[in-house]
Amino acid sequence: MIFTTDKESLLNAIKTVEKITVQRGIQPVLANILFETGKNEIKLTATDLDISIITFTSAAVSEEGKITLPAKKIFEIVSKLPDKPVNFSLNNDTGVVTIKCGNSKFEIKGIAAEEFPKVIEEDLEELEKEGTNIDVKPFVKSIKYTVYSAADYANRNIISGVLCKINDDVIEMVATDGNRLTRIAEKIKNKTEKESKVVIPSKTMNEFLRISSISGDENLTLIAANKKLIFKTKDYVLISRLLEGEYPPYQPLIPKNTESAAKVKKEDFANAIERVACMTNDKTKVIKLIFSDGKLMLKAETPDSGSSEEVIEADYKGEEFIIAFNYKFISDFIRTVESETIIIGFNTNQSAAVYRPDNDDDYICLIMPLKI
Amino acid sequence: MIFTTDKESLLNAIKTVEKITVQRGIQPVLANILFETGKNEIKLTATDLDISIITFTSAAVSEEGKITLPAKKIFEIVSKLPDKPVNFSLNNDTGVVTIKCGNSKFEIKGIAAEEFPKVIEEDLEELEKEGTNIDVKPFVKSIKYTVYSAADYANRNIISGVLCKINDDVIEMVATDGNRLTRIAEKIKNKTEKESKVVIPSKTMNEFLRISSISGDENLTLIAANKKLIFKTKDYVLISRLLEGEYPPYQPLIPKNTESAAKVKKEDFANAIERVACMTNDKTKVIKLIFSDGKLMLKAETPDSGSSEEVIEADYKGEEFIIAFNYKFISDFIRTVESETIIIGFNTNQSAAVYRPDNDDDYICLIMPLKI
Repeated sequence: MIFTTDKESLLNAIKTVEKITVQRGIQPVLANILFETGKNEIKLTATDLDISIITFTSAAVSEEGKITLPAKKIFEIVSKLPDKPVNFSLNNDTGVVTIKCGNSKFEIKGIAAEEFPKVIEEDLEELEKEGTNIDVKPFVKSIKYTVYSAADYANRNIISGVLCKINDDVIEMVATDGNRLTRIAEKIKNKTEKESKVVIPSKTMNEFLRISSISGDENLTLIAANKKLIFKTKDYVLISRLLEGEYPPYQPLIPKNTESAAKVKKEDFANAIERVACMTNDKTKVIKLIFSDGKLMLKAETPDSGSSEEVIEADYKGEEFIIAFNYKFISDFIRTVESETIIIGFNTNQSAAVYRPDNDDDYICLIMPLKI
Repeated sequence: MIFTTDKESLLNAIKTVEKITVQRGIQPVLANILFETGKNEIKLTATDLDISIITFTSAAVSEEGKITLPAKKIFEIVSKLPDKPVNFSLNNDTGVVTIKCGNSKFEIKGIAAEEFPKVIEEDLEELEKEGTNIDVKPFVKSIKYTVYSAADYANRNIISGVLCKINDDVIEMVATDGNRLTRIAEKIKNKTEKESKVVIPSKTMNEFLRISSISGDENLTLIAANKKLIFKTKDYVLISRLLEGEYPPYQPLIPKNTESAAKVKKEDFANAIERVACMTNDKTKVIKLIFSDGKLMLKAETPDSGSSEEVIEADYKGEEFIIAFNYKFISDFIRTVESETIIIGFNTNQSAAVYRPDNDDDYICLIMPLKI
């Protein structure tokens, strides 16, 4: 294996894959990135056996070959190289790769490519014909608006994933951890007109957010096959296992309408929550919201330590209404909102409140209140 | 205690003192800041019993008093307040302080001021007459150029301090950990013409660097009294214990001249060290320097993992000369250097090499080589 590439695109390719390598695991080869020569390109693969990422970087290849190299070390070295052509050259007898760039030279011991697990058995080009082709942008937005309320991935049960339904012209995502639920529907151009419904692990969604922010690809093909989901763009392929089982029925949980509602300015609400949260109990994180004519008072306290309160303007009319929440759930929602105003709808202080941006019925966050 | 002050200056005062408070110690009051009203100002004090810091912020005081408040909590609250007047009001019966700012209100339980240790017994104004008055700038520079090579403060022996000698017109500082030694002499205007020689704990020096970067004070009075050193400026007072004992004789260690020397460009040298260091052994951190006509080659290796090398230009004539160092010691030195060129002087590869900036004989860093 001998090839020459440029520093920046090599570094980008390494960044795309290195985060999921498994350091200090029982299989040393999973700490490595698999480098394989292709036609005028190098293919880089990393896997933690749950998620695999493949990416490519253009290169002048003068001898074919493949080898795995330690991900963290290669990342450290390449990130420090000057912005000059980088040459990799494998000694097939010793498994040592010599990296040359400017006046620098490195020799790194690799692990044979044969020890690296096969990350996909199927023929990707065949599978791609069965895929759903959509724009990256609404897909990324839908993930950002939902994934934060999925249950902890460590549990690996069905609600640690994000339900993702793609129809003709709408993508819908839902996530819940049992205490809150987020749902978004975004218009898309489904170029293949195929429908699909899968539950994608939240860890995969977060990994996809990370690598889609490195790559500039605007077009995405999703392929569900053999309990796996494949995200394919021009620059990379992400392969993840899917979560199996029936996603809980969430439609009945979403109130069709609420008895009362209040409108608050997003910035006022965000600042007040942040300040008042200074005095919440570290464990319960309870913040009380007290709505009265034209006003919202936020209150928190930690016995033996102190208390906090703040009043902001609210578009609310009616009797005083007190409801309590884990403030982290509200903060998580506010962070995703782009509109200047937030609407909070509620029926009783024992049933889920509906948080949503003003003028957008397609994004909601249900939050269960806490006991007062 | 009732006073009103503005958010930014209060926050600065809290920042100055809060870092040294002791969280989760056996004396809960050491996690707190002592607030005391003065004439048109508030005095804030924190201590870890080794180092104490006192600072001031102007305030409209309407009722005298004092109380201690939890440092981290107060810092968190004040940093999140809007940029408006902040009012503190102590309830003397309950020990609760009410903080009001804009539409926010906080109630924080304090600990009685009487439980806070006395940080200075002496009359500061009396002591100040005996002090040495100098400019802050050369003092700060001298600390930055030496403190990094002091021994670990956890040992608390004499070389975990920085030797500081102030004469009529020169300040000299020396630090060593036994493997390297830095010395600087800076011209100063000693306004009081008093001489002094003390060994200041490196922890104190680092704390002084931190708070002098918050304050803009240009004038400093140093007062050594009763095994303590007091740093006094207009804005703050730092009180530290001094290290006792005789600082080891360091003059004989500094070679008067060296048999050979090489000049290298600082940036080339810094970049090459950073890159080659990727392949040093994590424990020994050995990097080899190989000088030959016009060149310096840097080399490192970790058995079973790989090796690295880089060649840079060097103003050197003579036989090939090989010497090895802990690369961290070289990096620490390079970071302090302002000149574009560095001179490395050496006699044998068993004796200390002399690193210094070109055109500056008053700053040197001796580094003991490692075995090759």
